[in-house]
Amino acid sequence: MNVAGTPYRSIWRNADGTVGVVDQTVLPHEFRPIALASVDDAAEAIRVMRVRGAPLIGATAAYGMALACAQDPSDAALRSASALLAATRPTAVNLAWAIGDMQARLGRLAPERRAEAAFARAAEICDEDVAINRAIGGHGLALFRALRALRPEKPRLDVLTHCNAGWLATVDWGTALAPIFMAQDAGIAVHVWVDETRPRNQGAALTAWELASHGVPHTVIVDNAGGHLMQRGRVDLCIVGTDRTTRTGDVANKIGTYLKALAAMDNDVPFYVAVPSPSIDWTMRDGIAEIPIEERPPSEVTHVTGQTDSGTTARVRLAPAASPAANFGFDVTPARLITALITERGVCAASEAGLLALFPERGARAVGE
Amino acid sequence: MNVAGTPYRSIWRNADGTVGVVDQTVLPHEFRPIALASVDDAAEAIRVMRVRGAPLIGATAAYGMALACAQDPSDAALRSASALLAATRPTAVNLAWAIGDMQARLGRLAPERRAEAAFARAAEICDEDVAINRAIGGHGLALFRALRALRPEKPRLDVLTHCNAGWLATVDWGTALAPIFMAQDAGIAVHVWVDETRPRNQGAALTAWELASHGVPHTVIVDNAGGHLMQRGRVDLCIVGTDRTTRTGDVANKIGTYLKALAAMDNDVPFYVAVPSPSIDWTMRDGIAEIPIEERPPSEVTHVTGQTDSGTTARVRLAPAASPAANFGFDVTPARLITALITERGVCAASEAGLLALFPERGARAVGE
Repeated sequence: MNVAGTPYRSIWRNADGTVGVVDQTVLPHEFRPIALASVDDAAEAIRVMRVRGAPLIGATAAYGMALACAQDPSDAALRSASALLAATRPTAVNLAWAIGDMQARLGRLAPERRAEAAFARAAEICDEDVAINRAIGGHGLALFRALRALRPEKPRLDVLTHCNAGWLATVDWGTALAPIFMAQDAGIAVHVWVDETRPRNQGAALTAWELASHGVPHTVIVDNAGGHLMQRGRVDLCIVGTDRTTRTGDVANKIGTYLKALAAMDNDVPFYVAVPSPSIDWTMRDGIAEIPIEERPPSEVTHVTGQTDSGTTARVRLAPAASPAANFGFDVTPARLITALITERGVCAASEAGLLALFPERGARAVGE
Repeated sequence: MNVAGTPYRSIWRNADGTVGVVDQTVLPHEFRPIALASVDDAAEAIRVMRVRGAPLIGATAAYGMALACAQDPSDAALRSASALLAATRPTAVNLAWAIGDMQARLGRLAPERRAEAAFARAAEICDEDVAINRAIGGHGLALFRALRALRPEKPRLDVLTHCNAGWLATVDWGTALAPIFMAQDAGIAVHVWVDETRPRNQGAALTAWELASHGVPHTVIVDNAGGHLMQRGRVDLCIVGTDRTTRTGDVANKIGTYLKALAAMDNDVPFYVAVPSPSIDWTMRDGIAEIPIEERPPSEVTHVTGQTDSGTTARVRLAPAASPAANFGFDVTPARLITALITERGVCAASEAGLLALFPERGARAVGE
């Protein structure tokens, strides 16, 4: 997408062999590209969320494996890079998928050929992600058009989204935001209610920034407000991303997604999840029982970082020093609350039958095989 | 309640004739009692939320009327004070109730007798509030005991609350927190999940501070986390306050309450509302259609104020400067999602029949009469 007129992806290879990413911890106040020079840099960037979003985590891990090979292409180094990257964050399945994909391919090659092949495959994973998101955007756009046509008397289509599933969460376009960008480009009157997304405020900081940059009308709200808006008929649809989707259609996404799905169900508001197929964990059937939920530092809850009026960055404490806090990164939205999944192959019911109709090649595999 | 060993109410009359309150905008970082010397001071304190919580808003308005009478006891001054106070905040019905009560009583008196009578009545309203909350605490405590007995194998009773319905929201004890304080005092093992309560963080700032001061084990969580905890069986009950309750049992409370009630229903977690009878609006039947919902400044969403590591106070921006925000203060939880109401007269179903069984004197009055 364009940033002040310059086209950007969220991750790229620099001429000097390093990997470029945008440091998402300093947005929206500063747009700061940084260079990852080693697998340690890549792991740190994932762990402290300079890069985040399931697809981008996968792409960064792939490039992390490539940076590791460039330094030391031995089997031992490959194993150690895999372990380092796999330990960064537990919930997004794309991470494990990308590491496994790289390890399997590189393991078959002689060590001296690995670095070049790794960079080529990482670039390919990025291109695949962009193609997937473009396809999700197209299928979502058709849904948006249909919903817009249902209520032509309304001045606009009101969309609610949670967290950031935009181009910053992927390599380009985004998943949940792809149809929104495409609707705006197609001249459909669209307006987005942007959930702040505590504790890390990816909505207020990243989604709002992406929408503002692209000229999409939007309003930032606290995470508490979505139910009220749906009760009052002020939301036409919800759309969110996913960090891991079970083969039965349960979705692990940013903490609080489940609450919005409940409100959508209670108010007959369609609730869509944009699902790139690498986020599907075909080995799992029960999202609540099986998907590991990351717990992050309590300080992300008790403290907030932002920009002061004088333009400096400050971190402030909200809670009493004596009060402990807990910080769960994700929750699971059961398939029964989801109107439909939007994949790169089309739209389907949030169910095993729905997913297998689009991905029949997965039908033969039993769970856990 | 005690603050560092000194007993406090949230509002009191000073020897010099001014009215003392605690400035809740600087908690939890500083405990700062301030003096209200005029009705303008009282109105400002309500408007900018130095005092908040439906019962305390009512008590402050009553004292505001008294301060007005002390300055000018004429009918015109009384009318102007009523109008000034009534315009501060729209949702809590206690405000209108207290103003109406004072105006009716004072209007019957000769002007020279009004000031003394007004201060006496304001003090009486405060004492009534304390008695109501103590009674609510006792009825709630019985429920807590029963729920604790249901799961003796658990190490503790896990309670989730939203916003602040503690002693700072009332004159003393609180509504939703009263049974929690009493359970702790009675030696019941209780632990509270404290919703942060964006945008003004009354949970992280005030409820956490009250619980820490009283020694009640608690954990601060973001508003997004409650659904996840309920899915995992980590909440035994929810309890919240109310700013306005319809005669049919719909409850307007801090924005986001509705989302927690949906999650409680979805996970078979009991959801209680502590309802002092002055918060019941007997003229209303449909909370969503009839209760006015306050909209507050967008800057409360886009900016956060807290304490830096060096102990100074700082206000930081979270969202891009180009992004608009909307700030709805309350939402309505329909009666169908509420397990029971806890009033000063006992526990009842969230319905007109339930409320009238406890308040039969309201049965004769038709809606709007």
